[in-house]
Amino acid sequence: MQAEVLAIGAELLLGQTVDSNSAWIGERLAELGVALRRTTVVADRPEDVRAALDALHPETRWVLITGGLGPTKDDLTKNVLNDYFGGTLVFHPEVYAHIEALFARMGRVPGPLNRGQAELPDVCEPLHNAKGTAPGMLFTRHGVRFVSMPGVPYEMKHLMEAHVLPRLKAESETHISHRFFMVQGIPESELATRITEWESGLPEGLSLAYLPSPGIVKLRLTARTATAAEADALLEPSAEGLRAVLGRDIYAEDWKTIEEVVGELLAAAGQTVATAESCTGGSVAAQLTRIPGSSRYVLGGVVAYHNDIKVRLLGVNEADLLLHGAVSESVVRAMARGVRKRLGADWGLASSGVAGPDGGSTEKPVGTVWLAVSGPGVEWAARFQMGDHRERTVRKSVLEVLNRLRGFLATQAAKY
Amino acid sequence: MQAEVLAIGAELLLGQTVDSNSAWIGERLAELGVALRRTTVVADRPEDVRAALDALHPETRWVLITGGLGPTKDDLTKNVLNDYFGGTLVFHPEVYAHIEALFARMGRVPGPLNRGQAELPDVCEPLHNAKGTAPGMLFTRHGVRFVSMPGVPYEMKHLMEAHVLPRLKAESETHISHRFFMVQGIPESELATRITEWESGLPEGLSLAYLPSPGIVKLRLTARTATAAEADALLEPSAEGLRAVLGRDIYAEDWKTIEEVVGELLAAAGQTVATAESCTGGSVAAQLTRIPGSSRYVLGGVVAYHNDIKVRLLGVNEADLLLHGAVSESVVRAMARGVRKRLGADWGLASSGVAGPDGGSTEKPVGTVWLAVSGPGVEWAARFQMGDHRERTVRKSVLEVLNRLRGFLATQAAKY
Repeated sequence: MQAEVLAIGAELLLGQTVDSNSAWIGERLAELGVALRRTTVVADRPEDVRAALDALHPETRWVLITGGLGPTKDDLTKNVLNDYFGGTLVFHPEVYAHIEALFARMGRVPGPLNRGQAELPDVCEPLHNAKGTAPGMLFTRHGVRFVSMPGVPYEMKHLMEAHVLPRLKAESETHISHRFFMVQGIPESELATRITEWESGLPEGLSLAYLPSPGIVKLRLTARTATAAEADALLEPSAEGLRAVLGRDIYAEDWKTIEEVVGELLAAAGQTVATAESCTGGSVAAQLTRIPGSSRYVLGGVVAYHNDIKVRLLGVNEADLLLHGAVSESVVRAMARGVRKRLGADWGLASSGVAGPDGGSTEKPVGTVWLAVSGPGVEWAARFQMGDHRERTVRKSVLEVLNRLRGFLATQAAKY
Repeated sequence: MQAEVLAIGAELLLGQTVDSNSAWIGERLAELGVALRRTTVVADRPEDVRAALDALHPETRWVLITGGLGPTKDDLTKNVLNDYFGGTLVFHPEVYAHIEALFARMGRVPGPLNRGQAELPDVCEPLHNAKGTAPGMLFTRHGVRFVSMPGVPYEMKHLMEAHVLPRLKAESETHISHRFFMVQGIPESELATRITEWESGLPEGLSLAYLPSPGIVKLRLTARTATAAEADALLEPSAEGLRAVLGRDIYAEDWKTIEEVVGELLAAAGQTVATAESCTGGSVAAQLTRIPGSSRYVLGGVVAYHNDIKVRLLGVNEADLLLHGAVSESVVRAMARGVRKRLGADWGLASSGVAGPDGGSTEKPVGTVWLAVSGPGVEWAARFQMGDHRERTVRKSVLEVLNRLRGFLATQAAKY
């Protein structure tokens, strides 16, 4: 089974909005063994939308269309599809009642622009949108299904989950299974060299892909088989082989983030963590608390951007700051110990670095970062060179210190 | 002048990587008045890459190709383009020397896979990639330029800035100018109603688009003219009209983020800020410190996830916590005042809420957030209902409290 995505919106081509919808749709389709063959992004321009619909791959059976359903004048998708499929717009009282109810919840009444959203082509099956005012629409032609959904991500996701994925699941035939191996801190080419022998021994039916992002490489092992059981039988021996090669450098399997793994290990150990952040500016704490339920193991932290805060809230020695500077081993160690002690946490994490673009020196160029972990029987600190891109430096520092904590927690868990 | 983007990578269609490159390219092209007509995303599958190249719009003059240039087996772009343009791969010693130098900087030596990256089609112009091991390639056929770049965002950006944008700039003819008006905290349809009269009076040659993202609506006013001067003459009266309608609800023009505006206002006033975060978990501080040079005005903050930290580090009254709960007006006010006082900052920002998905009650359902600002002559707090999506709740809370601070800083600046 093959699908395509058609994303509509001038804002996507003008770069004011990143098309995160297509990635989300692709991931859901892959889980169902449906191949997303292509994504096409065009503006709200009728001839371009029509050209994209005319140019679909002959094997495509589902066309997932996002965007252009808002209440304003520049949203043209509904009218273009209505013309394309030769329909007439009809007012749906039940859709309008839903729009009124949504507005009432916020203490407001719909405007005339919202009333237009209740008019739908008579040639489509309306798809109820519980999360927003624009309903989805399902058109069918020559056995190909065309689904039109709003571009707002959580509305699109709702329509996919409520209406599209269940139908796709019921129709799917070949089975595609993936195994993911998440690796932090090893560059792609070094990783490739380490696993080259294992990779060349992969059996027929399995394929490997490297999916790098800053600081992390995701390895994806894919099996295409008739059934889920066959896929498992094919995947498991190769997965075991990879585990033997990479060991604990695999921080997770199956798409977990480092903060999820850290959270699970902390919760299992009944331990808590606190953060002392300088160059990461709160991002370590923010990353940890992205996980629902993280209040069980995150006590809190101190963002010590100014040196004065490092001294007063974390107990860093003023003489150390003067002698070694804020970006130094002794200061970052003191920050980790200090936050652990003052907040009463089992684990303390600390960062201090030169995120840039200014503030670098010959001795400590932009990208120099000291990280530290303090915990039961653990006092670790190390210096890193993260490069000259501020956001990347912060992101890599966050991943690195969380991955170190992960390693210490895993070692601790293995002991008991 | 018209361009298209062709993004290559199975990881984009499988949803493991969001295609942020195309948005960045689209934004840069728009600034030069070059229309990005379409973006096509395909996997590393030769026939799909060839089909996309065969299906280019007849008016397209530049094709910007990203991805598939890595050192590993699943990266096929170079070979596909070499075949498509009828070339032969040739080893480039100067490219290999660059690869060796990049590895040497990290104290490593290139592997055999990296050596292959120095082989390039003899029918292309190699584009030096100072930031990575895969060079860019420029092919020309029938006056259409095809540029192949790595998918790694900072390498692609470097190649665009060093090689592609300067050439595009030299060739551009029609002039497209935009004005942006950033509005926080007003839903799209409410905004549309408020400016409907102004919008219907827009002169020929100007167009308006609404670009919503969680918590923010960007309004884009576009002029298409022959020269920059004509664009300005057309844009300015309408921009002035919009300013008159929306007043200070426009938090910025020209693409600034709220944290940039806040930073400029704080720096201009010579004032400092500190954060006391519960439900936002460090994200307010992280957002403020994304700005280079923010150490001039961000002192730091306390992530007070656990109530105990609110009491010990921020001086919140235990009785208030017991009586009203952590998510309450008195607690959030005490947090803002406490962090301001204890860190010695001019401004204190605080958040406390139920981010969810658990922890809600009838009185304080998931999405209930209290925010507070404490500063010179300012003591503000308000309750918000941010919805039932954890990440959106955090993001909207961050934007809301920063925008409130922005309002107070702007009022203060207007006084002197």
